[in-house]
Amino acid sequence: MHDSTPIGQLSEREILARIAVRTGRASAAEIAIGDDAAVIASSGRVVATTDTLIDGPDFRLAWTTGYDLGWKAAAVNLADIAAMGATPTALIVALAMPNDTEIGFVEAMADGLREACEALAPGCGVVGGDLTQSATLMVAVTALGDMDGREPVRRAGAGVGDVVAIAGEMGVAARGLEVLFTRFCDVDGHATPIDRDQLESGELRAIEMQLRPKPPLGLGPVAAMAGATAMMDVSDGLALDASRLAESSGVTIDFESAALGSSGDLARALRGGEDHALLATFSTDDLAPGFRAIGRVVAAQPSPVLVDGEPYTGETGWDPYSDWNGQV
Amino acid sequence: MHDSTPIGQLSEREILARIAVRTGRASAAEIAIGDDAAVIASSGRVVATTDTLIDGPDFRLAWTTGYDLGWKAAAVNLADIAAMGATPTALIVALAMPNDTEIGFVEAMADGLREACEALAPGCGVVGGDLTQSATLMVAVTALGDMDGREPVRRAGAGVGDVVAIAGEMGVAARGLEVLFTRFCDVDGHATPIDRDQLESGELRAIEMQLRPKPPLGLGPVAAMAGATAMMDVSDGLALDASRLAESSGVTIDFESAALGSSGDLARALRGGEDHALLATFSTDDLAPGFRAIGRVVAAQPSPVLVDGEPYTGETGWDPYSDWNGQV
Repeated sequence: MHDSTPIGQLSEREILARIAVRTGRASAAEIAIGDDAAVIASSGRVVATTDTLIDGPDFRLAWTTGYDLGWKAAAVNLADIAAMGATPTALIVALAMPNDTEIGFVEAMADGLREACEALAPGCGVVGGDLTQSATLMVAVTALGDMDGREPVRRAGAGVGDVVAIAGEMGVAARGLEVLFTRFCDVDGHATPIDRDQLESGELRAIEMQLRPKPPLGLGPVAAMAGATAMMDVSDGLALDASRLAESSGVTIDFESAALGSSGDLARALRGGEDHALLATFSTDDLAPGFRAIGRVVAAQPSPVLVDGEPYTGETGWDPYSDWNGQV
Repeated sequence: MHDSTPIGQLSEREILARIAVRTGRASAAEIAIGDDAAVIASSGRVVATTDTLIDGPDFRLAWTTGYDLGWKAAAVNLADIAAMGATPTALIVALAMPNDTEIGFVEAMADGLREACEALAPGCGVVGGDLTQSATLMVAVTALGDMDGREPVRRAGAGVGDVVAIAGEMGVAARGLEVLFTRFCDVDGHATPIDRDQLESGELRAIEMQLRPKPPLGLGPVAAMAGATAMMDVSDGLALDASRLAESSGVTIDFESAALGSSGDLARALRGGEDHALLATFSTDDLAPGFRAIGRVVAAQPSPVLVDGEPYTGETGWDPYSDWNGQV
């Protein structure tokens, strides 16, 4: 099944053909792979975002299969589109790969891209991309979405008295990353292969959510229709991302610890990112379906994030920009 | 002026702020940098493409300034949008950089992105992006455009009897690359700094067109309105790109050598890419303004490209995918 031929032995055209048969279709695409550019139907407002995954700071090949990489590259971008209240329509994928990358890995990545779209944003698919050589493996995905006549939900709209709510998990992906770093790293900080037999089911599930996040992205447009006043996805940690939303809105967010779990779970929920849950605020207690209350918006204070009324002083989550140890 | 502080000494937020003040504005953007995603007004059909520039195969830092890199990363993508007959509206920029990259280099890149948009596609600008660490310097730009009610001009529409026409230069960027490779490379194939005093004016201009291409991209929508039957930009060489257009359309393209220049210029015009000239076909001799006839569409033959009725057997241009020597 897995073809281990290095891509350096194949032509660019052949690699593209083997990707294109796997990436699926985007229902809004009038023109997809094969012309100078893709053409996608739009209702009048297009939403666009990009996020890059780089071997080293963003993933380790000892932990991440090609399928996982494709899935996650799609999911993190689809989450940013959904967090605007938009419906994801299309992915554009720039792949830069060393010549010794196996074509089977690339095929699995295409499968992961397709299946993440099918699971998280049905109707969305890859409409184009670019292939280049690089000493460092890199996947840069740009996602497009459509507002379908809705108003975009920004970070800046939270008002004092609003309910702070979440849809999706908190801290699970961070727990998965902890398991990977503590159990599957050698003394030099290099990743080592995951031995699944060593893990209990909670650890295994946490690793799976770290490698292939499954946020409830269909709830982004639902929240927009229900009148969410502000929204974003939690990619860098609940406390850090909430502080960004609070600062954009000129308010402070006060989390209720009982709603976040107890002790270790609470700390991990606040610190942990990469679950890509949707964090939103609503001006009434009548939340959008799928959202649960975790706090309240209060008037701006020196600290943008409180827990039970006290300034949050805990650590923030893994930051690939500042925390990478230079290892792969 | 140039700030040589390594970006590893700055926070992500500080780097982003220093980029954002330089990247200019996109007139169609309702929401740009600073939220989960950008929101761009659309007339109903959005056009999207991506192209990545990687240190090594796509550029060499001994030859390319930050400004050049930003300019070229914008230009190559804007050309793909214009080649559909669309108007470029927005760029999304994924930057992956080593920690020792100087912030002055990054600022110059942002200036180059902005000024390329101002020169080649007024109204277009950077609306978002992503910043990550990488061992290899990489810029992946996604460009969006709008059809403004026009029909997209595909590669597949050329008909027998159509005039083959071009807008822009042919072979100039390829001449620049020849000068760089022959005059500014050491014996190991590493790039060395450009000594401009060694060069005569034609060589200097060719290098400038290689580093900062200036194709007449406003003519893309003009060609669409004038009824172009097929169009693409010439990025990989006129002969190679024409063969792709011919194969998509199920025809053969017969170039007239007298229209391409004589001897060395002719060969370079056919082989040379990276000028990003617009190659189009028209069903009448009444070409769009700015286009000049260089050949004729004929019935499909075994060879997709002819010159004066004879199969083209010359070499094709520099292919970063297959021709890179592994050096920077």
